Amino acid sequence: MNSRLPLLALLPLFLGCASLKPATEPLPSWNDGPSKTAIMEFVARVTDESHADYVPPAERIATFDNDGTLWSEQPLYFQLAFAIDRVKAMAPEHPEWKTTQPFQAVLEDDHEALAKSGTEGLLKLVLATHAGMTTEEFAKVARDWLAEARHPRFKRPYNELIYQPMLEVLDYLRANGFKTYIVSGGGIDFLRTFSEDAYAIPPEQTIGSSIATKLEMRASGPVIVRLPKMDFIDDKEGKPVAIHKFIGRRPIAAFGNSDGDLQMLQWTAAGDGARFCLIVHHTDAKREWAYDRESHIGRLDKALGEAAERKWTVVDMAKEWATIYPPSK
Amino acid sequence: MNSRLPLLALLPLFLGCASLKPATEPLPSWNDGPSKTAIMEFVARVTDESHADYVPPAERIATFDNDGTLWSEQPLYFQLAFAIDRVKAMAPEHPEWKTTQPFQAVLEDDHEALAKSGTEGLLKLVLATHAGMTTEEFAKVARDWLAEARHPRFKRPYNELIYQPMLEVLDYLRANGFKTYIVSGGGIDFLRTFSEDAYAIPPEQTIGSSIATKLEMRASGPVIVRLPKMDFIDDKEGKPVAIHKFIGRRPIAAFGNSDGDLQMLQWTAAGDGARFCLIVHHTDAKREWAYDRESHIGRLDKALGEAAERKWTVVDMAKEWATIYPPSK
Repeated sequence: MNSRLPLLALLPLFLGCASLKPATEPLPSWNDGPSKTAIMEFVARVTDESHADYVPPAERIATFDNDGTLWSEQPLYFQLAFAIDRVKAMAPEHPEWKTTQPFQAVLEDDHEALAKSGTEGLLKLVLATHAGMTTEEFAKVARDWLAEARHPRFKRPYNELIYQPMLEVLDYLRANGFKTYIVSGGGIDFLRTFSEDAYAIPPEQTIGSSIATKLEMRASGPVIVRLPKMDFIDDKEGKPVAIHKFIGRRPIAAFGNSDGDLQMLQWTAAGDGARFCLIVHHTDAKREWAYDRESHIGRLDKALGEAAERKWTVVDMAKEWATIYPPSK
Repeated sequence: MNSRLPLLALLPLFLGCASLKPATEPLPSWNDGPSKTAIMEFVARVTDESHADYVPPAERIATFDNDGTLWSEQPLYFQLAFAIDRVKAMAPEHPEWKTTQPFQAVLEDDHEALAKSGTEGLLKLVLATHAGMTTEEFAKVARDWLAEARHPRFKRPYNELIYQPMLEVLDYLRANGFKTYIVSGGGIDFLRTFSEDAYAIPPEQTIGSSIATKLEMRASGPVIVRLPKMDFIDDKEGKPVAIHKFIGRRPIAAFGNSDGDLQMLQWTAAGDGARFCLIVHHTDAKREWAYDRESHIGRLDKALGEAAERKWTVVDMAKEWATIYPPSK
């Protein structure tokens, strides 16, 4: 009987573990509420082999928009802040930009003129600053910018303004056999400079808009050169097209925050079997931002109406998120 | 002491296992020779944490051409056989094909005229037979064809004419933490109908040429429609471009069989650290086919020269492969 004593001696340790349980529960930055419940119930159903909604691991694909879904997008898309900083840095080599829109607007900090230049202006900025170099040179420029630039409101690196509750959703899904993907309107090569560190999403699971590239043989060896020409815009109707091309399977769960994600959510919802669609609703002007139907950035109008009709999960950020960003590194 | 008896009783079983050891050794269909040795030595180096060539698992990317590298490509690309069968099946709805090349050549089994129509003719056949339907409809047509069609020489389903030794390389790499990809000139959606069953390569790791698609909202829900227009040709210079776009990392190992794979091999070889490049040389007219520098299909000329210069591994199929195809299912 003496041999049982050592086990009894360990009992306090087990009790100690039990008291730590809340810290290891999933989604600790989510307040108890409808969204947390919906996420956990969906995952429980599709991972339970005895449930009618069971989905084998290979088909557990979850796609996430990035801007406004995994990180903030105000006061302007972070990649646009990058393009603006690049225009300013490159301006000495481009005297013509002083009198050419939308470059002039950028150099004069004329936000009104910049906004007026619209999508076409934005594309001009992107092509002027993101092309004309090899993929490796571009990755270095983007990484250097992320290391140095600070967000105007929070004075933190942009890649720290990621949502702690969404990081926990990513982890929770992966722990349950899901493969997590970014499907963003942002540039694929820009995203890939930080997606692995920020979200533990590897480059091959990071999908975005792209500019054309070509292989070039140089004396030093082959390089891939970025051309000043759009290849694909991964937004709205483009998202299901990109999902089909890159993944070749329909997601069973999709996460977005704006009308740019509506088609991805519809495409996901239209599959057979259990489906989960979630919209992050920015309702927190105090800790983050509050915007939806009237916003120029991340407008959430049609998708909000459809979410209500189809009973998709809509996260009330102010009420349901206990934390917004992870602590500073 | 009696309690040890049952263990001793199990001893013959252990000895029995030991005698089975050769069957569990990797690459059983490879004869001992330079290629098998080179593959195993490379894998040993990059997976040994104490070795200077060690590569962390996330970066162990291996890319494989398909036609002539993972399955046969004679007497004509299997996907072209599919397109030809489709032209014949669709001909009643297209009376104009009787007098229009390259369709007329197909309908009249005029191989000379078909060959004369070149790449342009081939693209016409592909666009006429692979577009104008949803992605789901196309997948069904391709799956049905694979189930019914038989190879003219071997009288077996095309997706059984895959190379047993290469299946073992795929398994061996995956068992050593590699992520295996197809990077083929063939159509991405055609490949994805069989790549998972044939090679255990999931759709998201199957890359190929693509035609343009668009999202269409129908009464029944959203569908992706295939358009009669090329989107991307994943061959030659296109292979590194596609690898960069889809994977976003440079492979550390690449496997091909023709000049269409040369740029993928060069791109792989040009990375830092340990690299492995392999070419399947078709030298076995008896069990498969023998062809290289002069072949119209899978021409291996420049890449064979470069392989010799750069000491890439060149597999002599006749000498190094103990088996060509797996047994019939």
